[in-house]
Amino acid sequence: MNVETPPILLREERAGVVTLTLNRPGARNALSRGLMAALIEALDELDADQTARVVIIAGAGPGFCAGHDLREIRAEPGRAAYEALFAQCSKLMLRIQTLRQPVIAQVHGVASAAGCQLAATCDLAVADPGARFATPGVNIGLFCSTPMVALTRAVGRKAAMRMLLTGEMLDADAALSTGLVSHVSAPGALAAETAALAARIAAKSPLTLAIGKRAFYEQAEMPVRDAYEHASAVMTTNMLARDAEEGVDAFLEKRDPVWEGR
Amino acid sequence: MNVETPPILLREERAGVVTLTLNRPGARNALSRGLMAALIEALDELDADQTARVVIIAGAGPGFCAGHDLREIRAEPGRAAYEALFAQCSKLMLRIQTLRQPVIAQVHGVASAAGCQLAATCDLAVADPGARFATPGVNIGLFCSTPMVALTRAVGRKAAMRMLLTGEMLDADAALSTGLVSHVSAPGALAAETAALAARIAAKSPLTLAIGKRAFYEQAEMPVRDAYEHASAVMTTNMLARDAEEGVDAFLEKRDPVWEGR
Amino acid sequence: MNVETPPILLREERAGVVTLTLNRPGARNALSRGLMAALIEALDELDADQTARVVIIAGAGPGFCAGHDLREIRAEPGRAAYEALFAQCSKLMLRIQTLRQPVIAQVHGVASAAGCQLAATCDLAVADPGARFATPGVNIGLFCSTPMVALTRAVGRKAAMRMLLTGEMLDADAALSTGLVSHVSAPGALAAETAALAARIAAKSPLTLAIGKRAFYEQAEMPVRDAYEHASAVMTTNMLARDAEEGVDAFLEKRDPVWEGR
Repeated sequence: MNVETPPILLREERAGVVTLTLNRPGARNALSRGLMAALIEALDELDADQTARVVIIAGAGPGFCAGHDLREIRAEPGRAAYEALFAQCSKLMLRIQTLRQPVIAQVHGVASAAGCQLAATCDLAVADPGARFATPGVNIGLFCSTPMVALTRAVGRKAAMRMLLTGEMLDADAALSTGLVSHVSAPGALAAETAALAARIAAKSPLTLAIGKRAFYEQAEMPVRDAYEHASAVMTTNMLARDAEEGVDAFLEKRDPVWEGR
Repeated sequence: MNVETPPILLREERAGVVTLTLNRPGARNALSRGLMAALIEALDELDADQTARVVIIAGAGPGFCAGHDLREIRAEPGRAAYEALFAQCSKLMLRIQTLRQPVIAQVHGVASAAGCQLAATCDLAVADPGARFATPGVNIGLFCSTPMVALTRAVGRKAAMRMLLTGEMLDADAALSTGLVSHVSAPGALAAETAALAARIAAKSPLTLAIGKRAFYEQAEMPVRDAYEHASAVMTTNMLARDAEEGVDAFLEKRDPVWEGR
Repeated sequence: MNVETPPILLREERAGVVTLTLNRPGARNALSRGLMAALIEALDELDADQTARVVIIAGAGPGFCAGHDLREIRAEPGRAAYEALFAQCSKLMLRIQTLRQPVIAQVHGVASAAGCQLAATCDLAVADPGARFATPGVNIGLFCSTPMVALTRAVGRKAAMRMLLTGEMLDADAALSTGLVSHVSAPGALAAETAALAARIAAKSPLTLAIGKRAFYEQAEMPVRDAYEHASAVMTTNMLARDAEEGVDAFLEKRDPVWEGR
């Protein structure tokens, strides 16, 4: 008898909101090479998908994501394998930032190491009140150096150093106050609140969201004068797009806008 | 009969504190080209004004500032007009940062889009407890790309993305905890508390304030080693100024300093 | 009769945790040239000391550190002396960041001016609930320009400007929420909680801590793509080290790791 393996990445779409669910619950959704490849492939497809407006990344089972797959890593040791692993992981994280659509992490249970990095990387993150975040690599002799790239761009230095040097868990409220997540849901309402947030954003012009998201990460790394010059050019281009003309007219005429979507 | 139009920018000075009040209450103080030009002109004059120690920017009527003037923008569409508009707006924001004097935003009601940018840009911002902040351009197809230059330099990335992608209002307490404002006043005490804050700063050496404010924005964009080299040179120059000699001597002699003001 | 002067810097070591105590209580631990030289020398020695795992910097007497020694500065005025002073101070601060070991500030009483800078510079900082922080140079005509290099890399711009322009004291809770410190201890438990924190970190692999701390400050100043490339290379090197192999194996085998320490 041939039993089919369930896919390691689930994809569900509803009204322009695509949910990608990490589906390795037995391994606490560890980011194996296969899972990272599946995520990158799914994101590449979504970037070209005109019907997809917002992406949610969630995890199946008891927690969001436990980081890299240590058993897989130890099974094939050596410089070349490690280099390939971290290159693939960095590619995944940068793909989230360069994706046309906004990406929301929906975090329950534990998000640790590269799983914490994944939540830190998404544009927005909604945490269940029981969610916990950690960069515990220091406990096993392997400092969370790639996770800290995303972590230090989300939270202040002292908060990041506390997580990185101690490996301690941060609870959802602390994750919100330090800036690691953008929302904490009510108890039992994580999926519903994340869906509602995604739906609100999915109602905006997808062209406008794509223009704005791209400019966000570009200007963030520029000196302020260059940032203004760049953002002014972006805004002029945005103003000349049909969706902005329609949006401004609808606002002045006190009616709902109708987006062309491009 | 010839009725005079009230000026769109009011200017009041009291004991070295100059208050500039946006005075287009019927248009919720929208930053028309005329109002931006008036602000830039007033700031240029203040920069050369030896009696002006601190500047407050406030708004007349129900709110602080609603952003750009959409009716004016739609009345003259086209690339050249848009480029001129955003260039003028960026010039205004940078003028606030390069001004010799500290600038305090006094925010009541709504500060949205370029109005939120204005509050984010000022060196300090005091919010009425009922004040609200938003970057709602995404709702009309026009992402708040230039406002986000100031916003992302004031608050963390997740908090900025939440405002930019949803267009939602942020209340005064959240504005304080995310870093968008520096103070929230007691109810009914916005003008009094802003004036008291301005008066405390106006009692410092204006030379010292000018040296420090300039160095603040310069060093913020440097790698830490360069920042220390630059700040050390600034501090040496500051130490050699008469106001620092007087200040240190007064401190050691337990008396009040007398500033030369230069 | 020859009475020995007590040393201006005390050094105590217990189980890999080295505590350096500023010991000029009569001068509120002001950072005289002698004290800064003693600190730099002690840190240089610790960097090469294989038994030292974590460093605590504390202050004797009523407060942590009151900044530079104004009497000493006024006794030898002039450009050359000032340049030497700020160069020495910057060297001290950068030495803390480049030190192999994590450094924890243990702050009670007042940390002001260069004393606030010292707390802001340490990788972690534990504040007594009664601790207070200020950059009050503006009150004596001497803007805290070098302290602001560390301050602005720890806290947001509006919070930093508030401290720098007003010179006001920030209490311990506000220091935690703005990110200036990483912990606030329970009343009366500052030394015990700092020691416990240091002991937890001292139990990690010192090689891993050194790799991670160095990468932390390096990647923080890079664009995100360069940061990922650098962190990936660091993580590959870290993975190939014996302590990481041991740590990962111990984790998978559910036993405690035994660090080689190199």
